[in-house]
Amino acid sequence: MDKIYAIIPVSQFANAKTRLSPFLSPEERKNLLKAMLKDITTTLKPIVDKILIISKDEEVLDYAKELGLTTIIEEDHKKSKSLKPSDNGGLNKALKQAMKWSRKKTRKIIILPSDIPLIRKTNIKLLIEQSKNLDFIIVPSKGGGTNTLIAKPLAIDMKFGEFSFKKHIEEAEKKKLTPFVHDSFYMALDVNTTEDLGEIMIHGNGTETKKYLESLEIKVESIHGHERLKVTRN
Amino acid sequence: MDKIYAIIPVSQFANAKTRLSPFLSPEERKNLLKAMLKDITTTLKPIVDKILIISKDEEVLDYAKELGLTTIIEEDHKKSKSLKPSDNGGLNKALKQAMKWSRKKTRKIIILPSDIPLIRKTNIKLLIEQSKNLDFIIVPSKGGGTNTLIAKPLAIDMKFGEFSFKKHIEEAEKKKLTPFVHDSFYMALDVNTTEDLGEIMIHGNGTETKKYLESLEIKVESIHGHERLKVTRN
Repeated sequence: MDKIYAIIPVSQFANAKTRLSPFLSPEERKNLLKAMLKDITTTLKPIVDKILIISKDEEVLDYAKELGLTTIIEEDHKKSKSLKPSDNGGLNKALKQAMKWSRKKTRKIIILPSDIPLIRKTNIKLLIEQSKNLDFIIVPSKGGGTNTLIAKPLAIDMKFGEFSFKKHIEEAEKKKLTPFVHDSFYMALDVNTTEDLGEIMIHGNGTETKKYLESLEIKVESIHGHERLKVTRN
Repeated sequence: MDKIYAIIPVSQFANAKTRLSPFLSPEERKNLLKAMLKDITTTLKPIVDKILIISKDEEVLDYAKELGLTTIIEEDHKKSKSLKPSDNGGLNKALKQAMKWSRKKTRKIIILPSDIPLIRKTNIKLLIEQSKNLDFIIVPSKGGGTNTLIAKPLAIDMKFGEFSFKKHIEEAEKKKLTPFVHDSFYMALDVNTTEDLGEIMIHGNGTETKKYLESLEIKVESIHGHERLKVTRN
């Protein structure tokens, strides 16, 4: 039995990161997603036993194969009974599917998003080291979400969606696990807005993602007195 | 000679956190600042040898004394020659003054802002442990800034203001120091906007700051699909 698999769910290239439109064209948003997926999997590869990419999108799965990753075709679930889009039912089901696939093959899984290119080897190594003695590790994202979970496969029900950080902690406690919060700015930074691109420009030295943004001549300025970033391009 | 002093520069209560107006009244903003200062100094107290509060504002200094902290009255420097407000000349001069005061008394200083109430004992303990073998530690803030520095007093010129994270690293390299970046979401979170208050509501269990916000009946909701927080009050 292996020690740890990474599970990275990836949505369709075509509809992703719409908040970066029209700053980036659909083609550019796809290239950005590819660069981010490359960064995170390059970081993970020497450290985990296997990287699973689960997606409905054939183009995503083809690209994952090019990167030498294991792919899982996401089952086409019936629409969730609930109509609240915030439930994120599709994502949670995809993760369950990937965990079922992994259950008899690996002791632990680390669930990560594809859009945190600032993640570092030191983050992952420390997390995996910590997970030897901890049964549940969670990394928050900005805005109350969850960017990473480490546990046994299927240890808790997935609650991605609004306020998932609190919900995952509650689920873990329900299962008598002891949640440990891993505190990381770089892992909290998922890329959704132009301001997030600014953080990549500042902190992303050596990443494919920064290289790609530089190729688009993206510039970042500081908005004085607001500690916010103004991101522009030529 | 002591091991490490904390230096916390504090601006005037009256003009602080204007971006939280009109959501919070002037009186409420002052109370918020007091709660945050209490949180950070309570966390630091058992770990550092001394906590220095430097400010021009007598009300700030009186409050610091109430908390049992060491106070330094900030010298009234002539207006910086440069007219660029982004230079943050006053803050950088105040820090220099506090470092001169400390120079012969302590080996290292840790410079922190007063508005990062989510900082945890584990953060500080780890940082101080690391500083035994590292000559320069920096903690980034959102938007390209610096939230914490650890070094010898006067080891580098202070560059607080726009893009200070990059500037401090450059200064350290100029002085042949080896900058180490400490990656922390909770230490990156300085409080400037209502959305930042939302993060406190989510992650600030046990802090005075969250207790105070709760007393104002502040509520936080998730803005679906935007990974942003909507913060309201009754």
